Amino acid sequence: MARFIRKSKHEIGISPDDLLFRGEKKSDKVILSIIDFDSENMEEKVISSVDEAMQYQTRDTVTWFNIDGIHDDKVMDDISKRFELDKLILADVMNTQVRPVMTEYPNCIFIALKMLQHDEKTGEINSEHLSIILTKSCLLTFQEREGDVFEPVRNRIRQQRKRIRSSGIDYLTFALIDTVIDNYIYILSLLGEKIDVLGENLIDNPKKQHIDEINNYKKELNFLRKSINPATEMILALSKTESELISDSTEIHFKELLENIKLATEASDSYREILSDQLNIYHTILSSKLNDIMKFLTVFSVIFIPLTFIAGIYGTNFDFLPELHYKYSYFIMLGVMLVLALGMLRYFKKKKWL
Amino acid sequence: MARFIRKSKHEIGISPDDLLFRGEKKSDKVILSIIDFDSENMEEKVISSVDEAMQYQTRDTVTWFNIDGIHDDKVMDDISKRFELDKLILADVMNTQVRPVMTEYPNCIFIALKMLQHDEKTGEINSEHLSIILTKSCLLTFQEREGDVFEPVRNRIRQQRKRIRSSGIDYLTFALIDTVIDNYIYILSLLGEKIDVLGENLIDNPKKQHIDEINNYKKELNFLRKSINPATEMILALSKTESELISDSTEIHFKELLENIKLATEASDSYREILSDQLNIYHTILSSKLNDIMKFLTVFSVIFIPLTFIAGIYGTNFDFLPELHYKYSYFIMLGVMLVLALGMLRYFKKKKWL
Amino acid sequence: MARFIRKSKHEIGISPDDLLFRGEKKSDKVILSIIDFDSENMEEKVISSVDEAMQYQTRDTVTWFNIDGIHDDKVMDDISKRFELDKLILADVMNTQVRPVMTEYPNCIFIALKMLQHDEKTGEINSEHLSIILTKSCLLTFQEREGDVFEPVRNRIRQQRKRIRSSGIDYLTFALIDTVIDNYIYILSLLGEKIDVLGENLIDNPKKQHIDEINNYKKELNFLRKSINPATEMILALSKTESELISDSTEIHFKELLENIKLATEASDSYREILSDQLNIYHTILSSKLNDIMKFLTVFSVIFIPLTFIAGIYGTNFDFLPELHYKYSYFIMLGVMLVLALGMLRYFKKKKWL
Amino acid sequence: MARFIRKSKHEIGISPDDLLFRGEKKSDKVILSIIDFDSENMEEKVISSVDEAMQYQTRDTVTWFNIDGIHDDKVMDDISKRFELDKLILADVMNTQVRPVMTEYPNCIFIALKMLQHDEKTGEINSEHLSIILTKSCLLTFQEREGDVFEPVRNRIRQQRKRIRSSGIDYLTFALIDTVIDNYIYILSLLGEKIDVLGENLIDNPKKQHIDEINNYKKELNFLRKSINPATEMILALSKTESELISDSTEIHFKELLENIKLATEASDSYREILSDQLNIYHTILSSKLNDIMKFLTVFSVIFIPLTFIAGIYGTNFDFLPELHYKYSYFIMLGVMLVLALGMLRYFKKKKWL
Amino acid sequence: MARFIRKSKHEIGISPDDLLFRGEKKSDKVILSIIDFDSENMEEKVISSVDEAMQYQTRDTVTWFNIDGIHDDKVMDDISKRFELDKLILADVMNTQVRPVMTEYPNCIFIALKMLQHDEKTGEINSEHLSIILTKSCLLTFQEREGDVFEPVRNRIRQQRKRIRSSGIDYLTFALIDTVIDNYIYILSLLGEKIDVLGENLIDNPKKQHIDEINNYKKELNFLRKSINPATEMILALSKTESELISDSTEIHFKELLENIKLATEASDSYREILSDQLNIYHTILSSKLNDIMKFLTVFSVIFIPLTFIAGIYGTNFDFLPELHYKYSYFIMLGVMLVLALGMLRYFKKKKWL
Repeated sequence: MARFIRKSKHEIGISPDDLLFRGEKKSDKVILSIIDFDSENMEEKVISSVDEAMQYQTRDTVTWFNIDGIHDDKVMDDISKRFELDKLILADVMNTQVRPVMTEYPNCIFIALKMLQHDEKTGEINSEHLSIILTKSCLLTFQEREGDVFEPVRNRIRQQRKRIRSSGIDYLTFALIDTVIDNYIYILSLLGEKIDVLGENLIDNPKKQHIDEINNYKKELNFLRKSINPATEMILALSKTESELISDSTEIHFKELLENIKLATEASDSYREILSDQLNIYHTILSSKLNDIMKFLTVFSVIFIPLTFIAGIYGTNFDFLPELHYKYSYFIMLGVMLVLALGMLRYFKKKKWL
Repeated sequence: MARFIRKSKHEIGISPDDLLFRGEKKSDKVILSIIDFDSENMEEKVISSVDEAMQYQTRDTVTWFNIDGIHDDKVMDDISKRFELDKLILADVMNTQVRPVMTEYPNCIFIALKMLQHDEKTGEINSEHLSIILTKSCLLTFQEREGDVFEPVRNRIRQQRKRIRSSGIDYLTFALIDTVIDNYIYILSLLGEKIDVLGENLIDNPKKQHIDEINNYKKELNFLRKSINPATEMILALSKTESELISDSTEIHFKELLENIKLATEASDSYREILSDQLNIYHTILSSKLNDIMKFLTVFSVIFIPLTFIAGIYGTNFDFLPELHYKYSYFIMLGVMLVLALGMLRYFKKKKWL
Repeated sequence: MARFIRKSKHEIGISPDDLLFRGEKKSDKVILSIIDFDSENMEEKVISSVDEAMQYQTRDTVTWFNIDGIHDDKVMDDISKRFELDKLILADVMNTQVRPVMTEYPNCIFIALKMLQHDEKTGEINSEHLSIILTKSCLLTFQEREGDVFEPVRNRIRQQRKRIRSSGIDYLTFALIDTVIDNYIYILSLLGEKIDVLGENLIDNPKKQHIDEINNYKKELNFLRKSINPATEMILALSKTESELISDSTEIHFKELLENIKLATEASDSYREILSDQLNIYHTILSSKLNDIMKFLTVFSVIFIPLTFIAGIYGTNFDFLPELHYKYSYFIMLGVMLVLALGMLRYFKKKKWL
Repeated sequence: MARFIRKSKHEIGISPDDLLFRGEKKSDKVILSIIDFDSENMEEKVISSVDEAMQYQTRDTVTWFNIDGIHDDKVMDDISKRFELDKLILADVMNTQVRPVMTEYPNCIFIALKMLQHDEKTGEINSEHLSIILTKSCLLTFQEREGDVFEPVRNRIRQQRKRIRSSGIDYLTFALIDTVIDNYIYILSLLGEKIDVLGENLIDNPKKQHIDEINNYKKELNFLRKSINPATEMILALSKTESELISDSTEIHFKELLENIKLATEASDSYREILSDQLNIYHTILSSKLNDIMKFLTVFSVIFIPLTFIAGIYGTNFDFLPELHYKYSYFIMLGVMLVLALGMLRYFKKKKWL
Repeated sequence: MARFIRKSKHEIGISPDDLLFRGEKKSDKVILSIIDFDSENMEEKVISSVDEAMQYQTRDTVTWFNIDGIHDDKVMDDISKRFELDKLILADVMNTQVRPVMTEYPNCIFIALKMLQHDEKTGEINSEHLSIILTKSCLLTFQEREGDVFEPVRNRIRQQRKRIRSSGIDYLTFALIDTVIDNYIYILSLLGEKIDVLGENLIDNPKKQHIDEINNYKKELNFLRKSINPATEMILALSKTESELISDSTEIHFKELLENIKLATEASDSYREILSDQLNIYHTILSSKLNDIMKFLTVFSVIFIPLTFIAGIYGTNFDFLPELHYKYSYFIMLGVMLVLALGMLRYFKKKKWL
């Protein structure tokens, strides 16, 4: 799980438009691919250079240009020049530390967000920096490595009947962001399940490892919030933008998406509170158990202490100790001890310690 | 009690206007029913197809078209076509995970909210997804299954004198939402009662099960808040809307309703705080009891430890131990022990441990 | 002390303009009284019917029509008809669960608030639902039962020189609300005193009953906040209203009143925090005492345990136990024990346990 | 230290323009003094009546009229008439319970605030109600008693070169409020120092008196916040006012003052949090110490309990107990005991209890 | 680490435009240096007087005038006169207690902020007051002492190709502030690393020193927030200013910087919460350990207490104690003891104490 903020010493003071990759390299290759479609036709292709992408741009179709691998400054420089995008934007594409945000530029909208994906095998959450650039004729998406997160969207494009085929670039943008948010909600939903299970185990039989779990879930939740909260701001901005690049009908979709992500925010707030409560409950149950332990020890000690003391008295070696010489002394002593012990037990029962 | 957020893997990335039922199926049947009225006449009827409903729409009356069962995509598709509603809206009707919200469309207002009902027999709270679509000529309501929540409203419609009979579709909408909110407040009121009882028991005699109760009430409260808070936003939007579908006089009713639901929000905030306090109080009482237990053990131990030690000394078998041979040694020892014990008791009394 | 929210099952879904009394009945009678004045003359009278009040309304004077007892729907219906007030307003007058609020209607301003009064004898706080209706020619006030809360205002009216005599209905409204807020502040001030006393007792000598007290004061504070917070909103609305019924000069008074009630809000926030702190402090003092108890037990046990062990060794009955037969063994043993005990004591002193 | 809110029963319902002194009387005398200056001349004078002050008002100079002692209703009445101020304003001047506020009246600005001063000798904080009335031709200040808080401002006026001499009444107002805020910051700075010292002592050696200190500092901080927070609102209002009485250039000074007081607010928030943390840390250290105590007791008990038991066995008086009669039994027993004790010690070392 | 607020008694009430150094003196010298550049040429020079700087101002180049050492009122007075800056501004430059802020004056923009730098050798954070004055023809920066924080910016200026060389004074301002913020993020990132390590150690093996660490990190975080939070406000103001001194294209940079600093704010919020959680976890682990200790003691005591009691009984010296005289009594006793001990162990296993 990534830390909340990360900056190395040599990154201080560098120019904001330096095309410098900042982050952990997750892929060596750069894969360029094009999906080009309108309501009638559809073309899917892996291309070898940025130049090749340019031909689609002039067409009257929706062009989705996807770049997997964001570490190659030459490719970025090419894109900057060919698509006439400010180098500032591409510098942000290459910086995995950029906060999720939507920025309007004169000729494009730049969207940065975190793509989270739950790995079914390892149970881990993979985080990836995703950049979307929306221009008049083309949608550019940048991922850190090859992945299948957007496969459902591609499938929808491949089916001719779907709304996505007859809509524009802005609707495609919405569909992609919608998929990312769906993943957030799915991950949150899995976390919620684990927190629920923990909650039940905790009350039945609290163990030290539960503290670990609470702590880990808190971290995971914090990590999720770090993606969800700025994404909310971003979607709000998209649903209110006056840019010509986003049509009114797509803004309605963004508004609905905003309600979805609010649901996620509310759920994450609730889980946070629940985890805090669980730590408190854990602590309280520990105290409750300590009370039980101490009651047990006290009852046991308090019953035997006086009995042992009595035995100790008759274990003394005084020459003149009259009780030692009566015939039934021993049995009387045993009887007295029994009465004492029973009296104690009754007292503790009255005190509700037993 | 439902979890805060729920999403299955196959729901990721599907199109927002797919007519796909999302949730737990609560009914197999789909029941369509019509209530049509003006100040003079009133008609109630169960109908068999969406087509049948269309004839009422052209009339100059208030038409309330209720659909129980939201899982049938064919019915939804029919409604979408017949009433000229965007498929997006019907997709939301079929999605029980939609956050309570009010959205204005060009030809209608869509309202989603959670209908909570306290089951008197089991003591459980049933949650149901309720959708309301308000068009110029008709009010459509969608419930997950047949129910009697709106019976009081139907009764008011059946009585000719009531204001509802002479008012429009917007007032009917208000009356339905008002009934839903009344149920929220009723459930909150029942919960409040249980929290009050718990509070008293807790201070008198704290038991481990109380932690369970506190935890459960917190969950219940969180669940309620999940319905109440977005409903507040929704009613605020309704009380401020500039839509022609809602008249100024009905907006006043929504404003008043807003005050009612604020009452609910404030009460739920108070209960939340009280539950947190109760856990703290529970913990503090445990500590107080532990102190009592430890005082008891300490007093008892500290009194007998030196006495047993003295007896131990005179139980040694030294050849030369002068005290053993004096005639009154034994009685002197007993006397010394008594004095010691009484001194200790006095000391503890002074220390306020007794 | 009333609960935070209260709703019975049969209240769900009833019409908002039903003239139905909701609450606990506090009086059987309905008393109607009129105070009518201008800067020159003043008339005070108990009247027997709503009709009788009408004659004052046409005059050019300030008319204050007070109704004690809000359970009689016939009286309310009369008022609604005579004063041309919407039945909705009178339904709110009869509902003691209405949240404090100010609503502007075309021909009047409706104000609902809670009147709290400290009963000097029992020390309890009496809460009453107060409704004020401000029309062009008359001020109507509705109380749940006869009371003397407004006596100071009546006294000011009875004195000719006072500003109230030469001001209008709006200033009278202000004077009444001002009196209600003064009572809030007075009650809060009494509570503050009790919290201060508790705070001192707590640190000196914490007892279990203090938890009870903290808990009760918290409840009382929550109850007060439930009245104070919406009243703040209400007064803010009054100080900003553009209604013709309230003059600019009276708005200045409401602004000043707003500062007063903010003072109350801030004080109640502070008291809340203090009570939370007190519970924490209580818990911490308990822990501190437990440490003292355990130190005491440990010191005592640790000193005597080895001594008793030594005595135990020389209490064994081995045939060959050389020490038993030396002449000074016993005294040497006692000496060793003394040295051990003193050494222990010194160790504990060094450890600051003594 | 004053309580957060204070109201006596007889203050309920009195008229807001009654010239009634409310508070603790801190001075018997009323001292009237005038400072009158422009960039060239300066005059300082104690006067005996309000009338005497009027002559300065007509001049084209800056007139500062200071009144020490606010309990005399006759003086207030004179001022009200002579300076044509609403009696409401003077009633607020006489009420020490008024919340710090800035109110604009048609012919003046009224400012109420708390003047706090640290008494170097007693270490206590003296709180005083300060009212400032800013009219076109004169600045009136009202203090509860004679004091030297404004001496630095008077000194600046006495020096001809200073900006204050060539500026207007509004700059003088700023200079006075600036001095009051400087005192807030100074007091907060002293409190911060004490909290720092406490923090260090607490971790080194927590004592019960530290709870007292934390509690007292919290109270002091709450008291300060009660003055600082509304003063912030007041200064914000002054920096934004459109009143002609305050020039644009002086508004810049108020804006800068606003930054200063924000610094104070932030510092007080930080200290509050630190104090809460300190209570938590105190509690945690107590728990840590309890663990040490219990480890010590447990180690000691657990080592000696079995040894004493073994000695007990050989202290029994059975006729047939073979071990008693072997020659080296005693030494073997001692050896076994030693081995047991060493084994235990090793076990505890492994468990990190030693 | 500096305290949150600091004010000495003699600073109360002094004039806001007094050129008085307030803070700890960190340097004796005052070093004046000039960097002057346009896209073609660049000149770097240390100058000996303010006069010398004036010649650059008239040129059509970007002039950056840096002053190291802010304690010399003569230099400040010179700057005030030569650059026609209000003495108020220079007074703020000399006051290290000024809160980070951006103020627009008619002829300049004044920016105050804290420059934090991590000292790699000592691990300490050096805080310095930094003032930036942006005029039409010149950028003035004031540091408390010579330093190398801005070296990366100087290096970028020295390279001809860089954007900074072809941009104006406003972009230079951005580059400097950007560098300061980068340092904030770097320091926060280092702190985050230490908190992570602490978190792991804490759960594995909590020690008392960890409380110290938590406390210190909290203080450090509070200190950072004190710089970060007002800087956020300042950058927001810069990104929204309508001043002609800052061009639209530079405002976009400030907007991006705002996102960066928001990242820092969010991270600091998360760390704060994590530290609070860690203290709670520490406390809970202590309780968990105490439970283990007490279980151990209880099990041990409870097993041996009855055995020792039995041995005590047969250590009594009664004349008639039949069991003493049977041949196998001793072995029977040992057997009974063994059975008892095993039974106890089984009981504790069932209770899950072992």
